[in-house]
Amino acid sequence: MIQSKLNLRVRYSETDQMGFVYHAHYAQYFEVGRVETLRKAGYSYKKLEEKGFYLPVHTLNIKYIKAAQYDDELTVVTTMDQMPSNRICFHYNILRNEELLVEGDTSLIFMNSEYRACRPPQWFLDHLKPFFKS
Amino acid sequence: MIQSKLNLRVRYSETDQMGFVYHAHYAQYFEVGRVETLRKAGYSYKKLEEKGFYLPVHTLNIKYIKAAQYDDELTVVTTMDQMPSNRICFHYNILRNEELLVEGDTSLIFMNSEYRACRPPQWFLDHLKPFFKS
Amino acid sequence: MIQSKLNLRVRYSETDQMGFVYHAHYAQYFEVGRVETLRKAGYSYKKLEEKGFYLPVHTLNIKYIKAAQYDDELTVVTTMDQMPSNRICFHYNILRNEELLVEGDTSLIFMNSEYRACRPPQWFLDHLKPFFKS
Amino acid sequence: MIQSKLNLRVRYSETDQMGFVYHAHYAQYFEVGRVETLRKAGYSYKKLEEKGFYLPVHTLNIKYIKAAQYDDELTVVTTMDQMPSNRICFHYNILRNEELLVEGDTSLIFMNSEYRACRPPQWFLDHLKPFFKS
Repeated sequence: MIQSKLNLRVRYSETDQMGFVYHAHYAQYFEVGRVETLRKAGYSYKKLEEKGFYLPVHTLNIKYIKAAQYDDELTVVTTMDQMPSNRICFHYNILRNEELLVEGDTSLIFMNSEYRACRPPQWFLDHLKPFFKS
Repeated sequence: MIQSKLNLRVRYSETDQMGFVYHAHYAQYFEVGRVETLRKAGYSYKKLEEKGFYLPVHTLNIKYIKAAQYDDELTVVTTMDQMPSNRICFHYNILRNEELLVEGDTSLIFMNSEYRACRPPQWFLDHLKPFFKS
Repeated sequence: MIQSKLNLRVRYSETDQMGFVYHAHYAQYFEVGRVETLRKAGYSYKKLEEKGFYLPVHTLNIKYIKAAQYDDELTVVTTMDQMPSNRICFHYNILRNEELLVEGDTSLIFMNSEYRACRPPQWFLDHLKPFFKS
Repeated sequence: MIQSKLNLRVRYSETDQMGFVYHAHYAQYFEVGRVETLRKAGYSYKKLEEKGFYLPVHTLNIKYIKAAQYDDELTVVTTMDQMPSNRICFHYNILRNEELLVEGDTSLIFMNSEYRACRPPQWFLDHLKPFFKS
């Protein structure tokens, strides 16, 4: 299992006229979360793209429990609890003062530089394996 | 059943460096779709808010099949296939030249002006009823 | 001179908690405007990129006179009043029912596929010349 | 003079297909900058809104010198170099490793809860005065 925690502050641009964070923006917080999770595992997503691999989102599911507001400090807890196969899955919890506001998950697929689905590169798997030793 | 179809063109600002529409932006296309569905049923979401009712998103699910690109003309087909109860549900298909790119669904809850969950107002239900006659 | 007019409707996602269109989003409306201006001149910006030319924004200036709101139908009037040299300049007026809400201008530079500033391609200039005949 | 410095990392969602930060998003970085500047002066913009004052943007000017890329760590230096009158002005420099990428400025006006232009509240001016002593 790999898990990361990061804090971010809600920007004014992320609110809507209901006075809360616009619902789709949590997907951006999720993304910041998974990038930090890969970085914590010693790997930057940026480098993956530079080597010709892309990770487009295949499915996105979000459940909204309580709304975040402007200037709130949120914690994004991102968990990757199984080794990637052709897909890589992340689960997210977004909290404010330890209260769960939003949860969600995404599955992503590996794509090569011709934009075709592919297996994850072996060096990437080798890199992650230690985190999932039984 | 109520269904609406609308066309929109992908904006440059909606792409990301992968060269496709950034995945979270489809949630905005969904929203444009459900607003037009309500409008087609003779009711604007704006008026609903003016009368003190809000429809925050409770769940959002998206499946990405094929990626849309800059300047593509997309068709958003939005379907509401059951009368709203405490929730109101929409299903979405996003197509390019009749090819399905993305599908998804949202459930929304009714909230009053004190931001508490509530029953949909009776006049709103009366208005929609004719579309769901058995 | 080339001028285009287009209508667009303010999306919920484009509002902020002040209840108006978030100020930076007008830059996206400007962009939709200049793309349509080029299209009206018979040329799509998409094709320009396919041929290896890019038009990054060099300067952006916006003056906010009155605020647009959710669901408003806006008119974007975009004007290109001189032949492009190394720069290409556009002026924008955003109106609601003929009332001016926002005005602005942008200058863009030509960049080749190695991301270096360059002269606009001759075929592009030839294409635009008829619109600026004295 | 009040000045703040903050670091932020470019999000994937903020890039466009040119491979750089989409130009309008710098206006959001500016906003994060001015909110932190007010916070550094001991005042949160959020509280200002809670007391019924709003600061809509009146003019926005941006000059793009060099493009920021995905995952870059940027520094936003925000300067307020004169006491607010009916307007409040900020200047921004966005840097990457001490290299200037983007500069800009905004003027904002004070607006009361009926959305009319107004004088800044006296307690707000009193609060800022010490920073501008001659």
